[in-house]
Amino acid sequence: MASTLITGIAELTTWDDERPSITDAALVVEGRIVAWVGSAVEAPSVDSVDAVVHVAGRAVVPGFVDSHSHLVFAGDRAAEFEARMSGTPYAAGGIRTTVAATRAATDEQLTAHVGRLVSEMQRQGTTTVEIKSGYGLSVRDEARSLAVARQFTDETTFLGAHVVPAGPDGGAGDPTAYVDLVTGPMLDAAAPHARWIDVFCESGAFDADQARTILAAGARHGLRGRLHANQLGPGPGVRLAAELGLVAVDHCTYLDDADVDALADSGTVATLLPGVEFSTRQPYPDARRLLDAGVSVALASDCNPGSCFTSSIPFCLALAVREMGMTPAEALWAATAGGAAALDRTDVGRLTPGAAADLVVLDAPDHRHLAYRPGVPLVTAVWRAGRPV
Amino acid sequence: MASTLITGIAELTTWDDERPSITDAALVVEGRIVAWVGSAVEAPSVDSVDAVVHVAGRAVVPGFVDSHSHLVFAGDRAAEFEARMSGTPYAAGGIRTTVAATRAATDEQLTAHVGRLVSEMQRQGTTTVEIKSGYGLSVRDEARSLAVARQFTDETTFLGAHVVPAGPDGGAGDPTAYVDLVTGPMLDAAAPHARWIDVFCESGAFDADQARTILAAGARHGLRGRLHANQLGPGPGVRLAAELGLVAVDHCTYLDDADVDALADSGTVATLLPGVEFSTRQPYPDARRLLDAGVSVALASDCNPGSCFTSSIPFCLALAVREMGMTPAEALWAATAGGAAALDRTDVGRLTPGAAADLVVLDAPDHRHLAYRPGVPLVTAVWRAGRPV
Repeated sequence: MASTLITGIAELTTWDDERPSITDAALVVEGRIVAWVGSAVEAPSVDSVDAVVHVAGRAVVPGFVDSHSHLVFAGDRAAEFEARMSGTPYAAGGIRTTVAATRAATDEQLTAHVGRLVSEMQRQGTTTVEIKSGYGLSVRDEARSLAVARQFTDETTFLGAHVVPAGPDGGAGDPTAYVDLVTGPMLDAAAPHARWIDVFCESGAFDADQARTILAAGARHGLRGRLHANQLGPGPGVRLAAELGLVAVDHCTYLDDADVDALADSGTVATLLPGVEFSTRQPYPDARRLLDAGVSVALASDCNPGSCFTSSIPFCLALAVREMGMTPAEALWAATAGGAAALDRTDVGRLTPGAAADLVVLDAPDHRHLAYRPGVPLVTAVWRAGRPV
Repeated sequence: MASTLITGIAELTTWDDERPSITDAALVVEGRIVAWVGSAVEAPSVDSVDAVVHVAGRAVVPGFVDSHSHLVFAGDRAAEFEARMSGTPYAAGGIRTTVAATRAATDEQLTAHVGRLVSEMQRQGTTTVEIKSGYGLSVRDEARSLAVARQFTDETTFLGAHVVPAGPDGGAGDPTAYVDLVTGPMLDAAAPHARWIDVFCESGAFDADQARTILAAGARHGLRGRLHANQLGPGPGVRLAAELGLVAVDHCTYLDDADVDALADSGTVATLLPGVEFSTRQPYPDARRLLDAGVSVALASDCNPGSCFTSSIPFCLALAVREMGMTPAEALWAATAGGAAALDRTDVGRLTPGAAADLVVLDAPDHRHLAYRPGVPLVTAVWRAGRPV
């Protein structure tokens, strides 16, 4: 198995319990995994490895784990974005615009588009990405959306319950009939391609009872639950996620004390998506409050054509520091180990022996530059499964 | 003279008075300049040019004109940034930290560092950059800072009046003696390397009388004036700039109605630097108010190691739309033609026949994506003076 010594690392973020960060560090990759990390002076000799890479005083961090994205769609909504910035408020109903474009696209078009976005993410340091369906909203289109997503990641999520689609006459759809469809034939068709099931539990989308029904149906098909909740206003979603012991609940913008306590007690990861608040001019979630209460926080992009079309985890991390009271180290943890926790993974999001050799070389001496240098593309090299990509 | 036809342009931003934006467009470069722009169907035939480049449905915009940066320095202030994000307020005195590092660096180190930052800017679409001195604050160090900057741009600015440096004993320097130095031997040494002279007119730096004295001295050496003003609080700087008929006054965060009226009347460009407010958690300037009053607005990076270490004009543009009430088109104008106006240039910042062939190809169908896709590196190709860089 080929081994590579990466040395000359000014700062290596490992998230190892004992040594979460090592200065003047080195790392050995064997095959697809990390075999050794430590101080450069203690590193295996260059004769003992097959190759040596010198990163010349740069920082190395774990590859980003983006646990929330909606990449399977067609069309864009730049005009809606422009109107929103001039004062039109964001509403969940805009999703239907993308549904029409997605249904009209061929499998090949959808695959090519997802491929472009996954590559764009990878160039920016994302090495693990979760991808949701949710712009098909028919049996055929949800199933093929997930089949497309599955070509790029194992972390696929069935989000048939994104919004109730328009009825055949173009008017408001019937929510009860749609929940029956989602939990019946659509779930049957989607489940073979998905690991997770998700519900947009929000006023204008699905209520707590509907969410409970949909997650229970998913569980019967072996899908694990997650929720979009408390994004646009207070609601029952976060407490439902905690009650059900879900791995993660996403958005968490409008929380009361009971919500925060419930998350702290359940261990459910709160996934914050500050790109959404940036792109919708909503208030940011209060990460500091969650961290201080002992809640695990993840950061993800929510990359989607409506509320947030960024694919950049470094941008989200800079927002987390500027807007949500996180330190640069907390934000980096949230976008790596935190994202992994939100997917119930321990093999990614850290650089400890045995973990995947998914890593990012920054054109900077330490991780703080990701927030200190907002907008600057600092990712100079990305390794995934032990190889440069 | 070699000619190139660039075609397949989904949207071409020209800032021509008659046709500021052309869809399904083409452009002809001859030598270093733009020779023709128009609809692709009206373009010169491929046989009439030396080369053809097809950009496959992407948008083309003028290269960004970054009219305010402080690239000549050594060291970084990531630790100060981190402390500030945890609650320590920004103060102008932090400049002295960088002065010590800059004085200790060799010319070669400074040149290499500026070169790296200029390249980083260029990769992000900046084709014209203004560079200030201001971290030398001695006769020798201001002059060599400008000589270094002059290797990269003609738009060099003498900013000896950045802050009063510490005295020989390490305590507070003597402002009167320092203004004498700036307007005397330092100006003599700096002027051959500079086009502009600038003063940080702010509480804690220099007052209006000192600014007036310094600008007048600069004018006697042929240097045109500009000011940093009204960044950290209300002050006399903006009105002074208008009274003196300066080309531009930069920051403009704290303005009263008389300041806005003075700018509208004088035609002085208000250069806004939203990366600073992002990185110092200060309130953003109100671009909408300025635009509605008829003031010309430019956007620039202010790239510097203390208050704002971004080099990304696309990031500033996204902030301008999110935080300052600009439309995507207004923000793009401000970062191109507006930046040019702030440097009293008409040969850059637009893509009209006769202008420099400085252009950016975006991995997007239109300019709105620069704000719609914040943080995403959308710049796929940059041409400067008629050639890809």
